[in-house]
Amino acid sequence: MNAHARPEAAPALRREDSEGIAVLTLDRPQSRNPLSEAMLAALAESFTAIAADRSVKAVVLAAEGPVFCAGHDLKEMSAHRADPDRGRAYFTDVLGRCSGVMQQITALPQPVIAAVEGTATAAGCQLVASCDLAVAGDAARFCTPGVHIGLFCSTPMVALTRNLSAKHAMEMLLLGEMVPAEEAARMGLVNRVVAAGSALREAKRLAAVIASKSTATIRIGKRAFYEQREMDLAEAYDHASAVMVENMLARDAEEGIGAFVEKRAPVWEG
Amino acid sequence: MNAHARPEAAPALRREDSEGIAVLTLDRPQSRNPLSEAMLAALAESFTAIAADRSVKAVVLAAEGPVFCAGHDLKEMSAHRADPDRGRAYFTDVLGRCSGVMQQITALPQPVIAAVEGTATAAGCQLVASCDLAVAGDAARFCTPGVHIGLFCSTPMVALTRNLSAKHAMEMLLLGEMVPAEEAARMGLVNRVVAAGSALREAKRLAAVIASKSTATIRIGKRAFYEQREMDLAEAYDHASAVMVENMLARDAEEGIGAFVEKRAPVWEG
Amino acid sequence: MNAHARPEAAPALRREDSEGIAVLTLDRPQSRNPLSEAMLAALAESFTAIAADRSVKAVVLAAEGPVFCAGHDLKEMSAHRADPDRGRAYFTDVLGRCSGVMQQITALPQPVIAAVEGTATAAGCQLVASCDLAVAGDAARFCTPGVHIGLFCSTPMVALTRNLSAKHAMEMLLLGEMVPAEEAARMGLVNRVVAAGSALREAKRLAAVIASKSTATIRIGKRAFYEQREMDLAEAYDHASAVMVENMLARDAEEGIGAFVEKRAPVWEG
Repeated sequence: MNAHARPEAAPALRREDSEGIAVLTLDRPQSRNPLSEAMLAALAESFTAIAADRSVKAVVLAAEGPVFCAGHDLKEMSAHRADPDRGRAYFTDVLGRCSGVMQQITALPQPVIAAVEGTATAAGCQLVASCDLAVAGDAARFCTPGVHIGLFCSTPMVALTRNLSAKHAMEMLLLGEMVPAEEAARMGLVNRVVAAGSALREAKRLAAVIASKSTATIRIGKRAFYEQREMDLAEAYDHASAVMVENMLARDAEEGIGAFVEKRAPVWEG
Repeated sequence: MNAHARPEAAPALRREDSEGIAVLTLDRPQSRNPLSEAMLAALAESFTAIAADRSVKAVVLAAEGPVFCAGHDLKEMSAHRADPDRGRAYFTDVLGRCSGVMQQITALPQPVIAAVEGTATAAGCQLVASCDLAVAGDAARFCTPGVHIGLFCSTPMVALTRNLSAKHAMEMLLLGEMVPAEEAARMGLVNRVVAAGSALREAKRLAAVIASKSTATIRIGKRAFYEQREMDLAEAYDHASAVMVENMLARDAEEGIGAFVEKRAPVWEG
Repeated sequence: MNAHARPEAAPALRREDSEGIAVLTLDRPQSRNPLSEAMLAALAESFTAIAADRSVKAVVLAAEGPVFCAGHDLKEMSAHRADPDRGRAYFTDVLGRCSGVMQQITALPQPVIAAVEGTATAAGCQLVASCDLAVAGDAARFCTPGVHIGLFCSTPMVALTRNLSAKHAMEMLLLGEMVPAEEAARMGLVNRVVAAGSALREAKRLAAVIASKSTATIRIGKRAFYEQREMDLAEAYDHASAVMVENMLARDAEEGIGAFVEKRAPVWEG
């Protein structure tokens, strides 16, 4: 299919489900898959739907075309400089929605795996950083280039600094240079680098591993991950211990531990 | 000595002291050195004793047999599903004890160095993450495999996320795959990888370096390390500065700085 | 110029400005560029001046001689043991000033790039860790050796633990061993390693990249970086979003985005 022939009336985001895995594909390759109003709305809607969809066990976030995601739609935003308030209300709304989508990923019961080919820049890089896991093709590149246009990547910074060490994050933010996939992996921005063109396949493979586990258990664990990391050590242990007691008493742990002890395959309910 | 011939009546944990270094050895190789009630009690008791023992300057935590530590004793835990409360009280107690032991390591005045050969899984991996330093033989492997049995490694996660970057920790927790020693070193889970079979020797060598320093100084520094890291920057500096003033006024700093200025070896009191 | 011939009456710190870049050079090579009272006062004064100097867009911190910075001036400190309070007031004052200088770097509107040749030890290592970016010559070495003299590097620890993973920081602090530049880069203490003798040139190159951006934008971003990293995720997003709205409404973002859309070079005002 020729991406350039696709009508803009088509949905900005495609969702294809298969064997418990929802693949979300950013599908505005002509305009570099920007996080436009339409794209943010589509992502928000999809994550809301998936959060409530018990058939989905893992999510892969991919993109059509040579650019994974170029971040905000600068033309759309610039148009609102003509608003009576010079765009303040609009920018507030769009950045709030965007930050909301990033936090939906963290809050989603199912793990989200980015499959990155091409460049992921600005809020597009933030999208990758916000996913639970990320796989990159070896030609993928990452960048927070806001400094080049007078708009520091301050919201992408939130996700970057929760994944990278301070000096690595600062370097990306201050210099705005392209970071190759291998370096992104060393920095902790992506988990794995695979041959160019294979990121989606590898992300699906990881999603299938996750989908083969107890969904109820994964949900418990992912939530606890983000909760406990903002607590001090003693609090975090209190919380994680309480979570683990409930997990032990849940049906899938009983089944899983029983199966392990009896050396048979578990049958998950959750 | 044949590990498999060792009677289970022997202590679960051996302690051998030499030249200011206490080596604690998990000694239930037949059952993969689980953090059973007995093992947790032995660890808690040993750490309590060591905390009060001025002759101990550093601790090495090692294990007998091909498995460093396989985590909780699932058989022991499963047996309590027959309790009237389906095990809730028991699980709460065991997880509380386990979290307590992990925090004893952090709170211990003396540094604790893990010497890992073989596999360290689940709470066994947490034990390594909880130590101040860790050395691994190059055949050692690390894993948080709770997802395979429906029981997410939520308490190990607390220690993992305080050592590894977010995506690395999430990968270990969601996939439950074995991580080789070299990769564990890159991730920050262990400090050094040595030839298989040499981890204990290297851990003892590091312990001897630490034991050659002022014990009072090490105690001051280790405590401040874990205290200040949970503070914001300004608070952390206020606290660390106050700690350092007291340290300057203590006898061993006077001796150490004097010896340095006079180009002689210091004689520690603390 | 022969460093050893330089009179001690010369300023401890040189400042040379060129094309928007202020290069601060620690200039007490004979005494290993210690953070003496004089040096701390000179640094504090320079940072205060630079903070208010709109002509400075980036700062490089370098040092004269084979030692980048050896930390506190132990002779100066030891002399105060003869004070009626055994030095308590003096140590409190000096450590407070030193922590203040480190936080001035973080609070400075302009990014600060360390250019390290030779050894950076104790508070000298902290100085590097406190900079926003750091470049090292490949013969540079880093060390927090306080344990050798009975004085744990507790204040350097504050900066180290905000840059390195826990076990790496603990290893440096407990063992006090020299860490080569390449390892320091892997640990996240420095961003880049270049040929010995080239650190200053590379640091200036990075500073020139930063100086070519909108200074107002860099100021907004650097401040937000350190503010948001001490917040929880939701707070951090609220804060960063608010920061980004103001940034969008500022003149340089309008110019930068306009220039980008029109494919021309931006002309910064800030």
